Amino acid sequence: MKLSELAEKTFSTVSQGPPDMEIESAAGLDIAGAAEISFLANPKYTPQVEVTKAGAIFLSEGVEINRSDLAVLRAKDAYLAYTRALRIFNPEPPIVSGIHPSAVIDATAQVAEDIEISANVVVGKNCKIESGVKIFPNVTIYDGVSVGKNTVIHSGVSIRENCEIGANCIIHNNSTIGSDGFGYAKDEEKRWLKIPQVGRVVLEDDVEIGANTAIDCASVGESRIKRGAKIDNLVQIGHSCTVGEDALICAQTGLAGSSVIGKRVILAGQVGIAGHLKVGDDVVITAKSATSHDVENGKVLSGIPAFDNREWLRSTAAFRKLGDLARSIRDLEKRVSRLIEK
Amino acid sequence: MKLSELAEKTFSTVSQGPPDMEIESAAGLDIAGAAEISFLANPKYTPQVEVTKAGAIFLSEGVEINRSDLAVLRAKDAYLAYTRALRIFNPEPPIVSGIHPSAVIDATAQVAEDIEISANVVVGKNCKIESGVKIFPNVTIYDGVSVGKNTVIHSGVSIRENCEIGANCIIHNNSTIGSDGFGYAKDEEKRWLKIPQVGRVVLEDDVEIGANTAIDCASVGESRIKRGAKIDNLVQIGHSCTVGEDALICAQTGLAGSSVIGKRVILAGQVGIAGHLKVGDDVVITAKSATSHDVENGKVLSGIPAFDNREWLRSTAAFRKLGDLARSIRDLEKRVSRLIEK
Amino acid sequence: MKLSELAEKTFSTVSQGPPDMEIESAAGLDIAGAAEISFLANPKYTPQVEVTKAGAIFLSEGVEINRSDLAVLRAKDAYLAYTRALRIFNPEPPIVSGIHPSAVIDATAQVAEDIEISANVVVGKNCKIESGVKIFPNVTIYDGVSVGKNTVIHSGVSIRENCEIGANCIIHNNSTIGSDGFGYAKDEEKRWLKIPQVGRVVLEDDVEIGANTAIDCASVGESRIKRGAKIDNLVQIGHSCTVGEDALICAQTGLAGSSVIGKRVILAGQVGIAGHLKVGDDVVITAKSATSHDVENGKVLSGIPAFDNREWLRSTAAFRKLGDLARSIRDLEKRVSRLIEK
Repeated sequence: MKLSELAEKTFSTVSQGPPDMEIESAAGLDIAGAAEISFLANPKYTPQVEVTKAGAIFLSEGVEINRSDLAVLRAKDAYLAYTRALRIFNPEPPIVSGIHPSAVIDATAQVAEDIEISANVVVGKNCKIESGVKIFPNVTIYDGVSVGKNTVIHSGVSIRENCEIGANCIIHNNSTIGSDGFGYAKDEEKRWLKIPQVGRVVLEDDVEIGANTAIDCASVGESRIKRGAKIDNLVQIGHSCTVGEDALICAQTGLAGSSVIGKRVILAGQVGIAGHLKVGDDVVITAKSATSHDVENGKVLSGIPAFDNREWLRSTAAFRKLGDLARSIRDLEKRVSRLIEK
Repeated sequence: MKLSELAEKTFSTVSQGPPDMEIESAAGLDIAGAAEISFLANPKYTPQVEVTKAGAIFLSEGVEINRSDLAVLRAKDAYLAYTRALRIFNPEPPIVSGIHPSAVIDATAQVAEDIEISANVVVGKNCKIESGVKIFPNVTIYDGVSVGKNTVIHSGVSIRENCEIGANCIIHNNSTIGSDGFGYAKDEEKRWLKIPQVGRVVLEDDVEIGANTAIDCASVGESRIKRGAKIDNLVQIGHSCTVGEDALICAQTGLAGSSVIGKRVILAGQVGIAGHLKVGDDVVITAKSATSHDVENGKVLSGIPAFDNREWLRSTAAFRKLGDLARSIRDLEKRVSRLIEK
Repeated sequence: MKLSELAEKTFSTVSQGPPDMEIESAAGLDIAGAAEISFLANPKYTPQVEVTKAGAIFLSEGVEINRSDLAVLRAKDAYLAYTRALRIFNPEPPIVSGIHPSAVIDATAQVAEDIEISANVVVGKNCKIESGVKIFPNVTIYDGVSVGKNTVIHSGVSIRENCEIGANCIIHNNSTIGSDGFGYAKDEEKRWLKIPQVGRVVLEDDVEIGANTAIDCASVGESRIKRGAKIDNLVQIGHSCTVGEDALICAQTGLAGSSVIGKRVILAGQVGIAGHLKVGDDVVITAKSATSHDVENGKVLSGIPAFDNREWLRSTAAFRKLGDLARSIRDLEKRVSRLIEK
């Protein structure tokens, strides 16, 4: 593809280099070659621009480099433009329609014609699989599940009874959608009596679920992951939670039951959200933090328990010297006592 | 079911409303309808009682509400009574005896007649599967495993060599029972030499294991999850651990090797327990905490490392102001120095 | 095996007891019997030496016990010698060559003759499986994967497109190798645009991966786990990471994208490593800690965010008394104010 055509398709402009230069693909600064376009988004990687073998680079407006030999596509957001280039050079392969003979599809399941169902997939009673769906091997779909158009389900995934999966979703390997919520009541003998978990999970459209993630169903009602939310690997979503549109939940984060996460919330890695909370829209909670209280829209929180990120940064800076602080106080107490005695 | 009959079966009493009212099912305050019974257990949800469309509600003794139109079943523990109602309205479906033709059962396995084994299940040599067991698709059971009566094993589960699963257990999807413990000795060249992991895991009766959880076998001997213990999703149980009767281990908690967890212990979400520890009976460790020391019976601990929960609450409250505290100390030092100089 | 022969094979010497004593196996102090050899490595277990029923014991040089009835093999490192004994008594069972008829192997896959492929395994196009490989049931291997000699892949594992698995690796149940990295660019409408993840994962030789672990591929290029690294259960390795030779990554640890972990690094349980970092050789990060900065070779770090372990121990000791410290400061302020007023 010519540089000028790539510019047009990525909403960028050729600001340096020959517009008819051929670009074959896109890659990071460290591995891109002469026929490839790269990008600079994290200033940490600026030194790599000096030595990259890439033939072209996406740069955000205002970012300057010292490489007159490098073609430059200028974009409002270099990372977004690079993403679009990657998508152009790496289109999703089309599905190969058909059902592998080893797949076990219940006779009552409604399966569209143009779907791809691989070996050893099991589809239960009264399921509905829409067109364009691709299911990799060894997937188990329980009774009553629906899967929307063009959704991809990777090998080893289990989708439990009555769950509803939207269109254009991607579910990565070995994840579990709709397992029982962790709910018990303590009986008179202090033993745990299981609370039936007969609800379901709804994934709306454009949701992506990482590998080895578990999303529990509700006891009654539903857990819901809204349109465009992205969930990483090894995440726990407890029963009856709602995750807002375009939320981003990073790896190993856990939500206890019945919490509601707002739109565009970002939960970084290994975050914990206690049960029955409301986390407002556009909240960011930094890695390894946890909240047991509701969070207002737009807050950036850190710590266990979490509070304002800037305050937390001050507190953690002081924490590093806390041994010294404690000694300073003991010293001060002695000096003050001596002063008082005088 | 008539309200009066439901009261009898849930050990509660009709304290308001018509005893012959028909109740069809049970649900939370936000979704229950006119023919459904709900409950109030967490005071946070008291405002929902004002607006619920439920026809009846379980209330614990001493809890009052302002809804004379709502039938009330009074119970010692409203949550427990509601759980019993849910169980009455949602009985477990009976198993459908049979072995799917695609299942691969080794000829030496002893399988009871009234079991349900689904598609693509693999059962190894010398296994013993007792009556009433239900195994969902794509489960792998290695050689020498025994599974007790009425246990349910969900799709994608792997049970490794020689493990022993008790009666009335539930193992959720994609969990691993009996994977190798993480044990290595460092050799003379500073490389890791694998320690053979030839032990097994024993789940006693009434144990429930969540989705995507991993329980390692012992190197020699066994890891044991005792009667009635409940383990949530994405939990790590290291080699040779013992988890006590009726313990509750919440999502994403991890136990390193050889630790012993007492009876009725509650480990909240994302807790960490170091190796070779003893955690006493009835201990509670709050979310995201970790202990590297033994814990006495009945303690409630928090923090990393964990200490008394009330002390921790005081410390975390002070931590939020730690930047200010550090500045106060510097100010004090200056004032005291000036006083001394005078 | 005679004690003297065992001594020779474990590079130890008979320092007490009859050299021709028969040893049949090896086990921990608490479960070893008269024909078994045990070991003492952790001083915590010294009291068990008094009561063990083991017939023999490995002791490191300089460690003394009060049991003249116990045969003693003296080794430079008792734990390493015991590991070698366990390996002698528990050799890996040889593979049983063959492909189960229910396995689905693409016609274009190159599969060596002396391999063991179990029931319901699926192997994609253009894969290459070398000799001595053992694949347990319900494993899915996507197109273009290569698996080196003598590697063992346990049930439920998924290996995604084009990944390269070295020789003598072990991958435990339900793990995912090569799932998509968690990468999105925010578009003009604040929605997440998926960044194609077309790279791969390379496991070099002698790598072991625990159960239910997820290792993401790179967007472009590769994620690499180097020779001899050992990764525990439920670990998250983000896209484009490199894990150094002989590194040890304990359960539930998470690495965000593009980080580089040095040789022989030990990351204890539930550690977090932020993205785009370099962690030097021989670093140790203790359990539940997290770093968002590069770490120099040989450092031992703790805390969130992590700093020097000894400083952290001082800080956490002071933290336990932080409520008291805050009160001491308020008291001091009053006393100093009164002094100034005088």
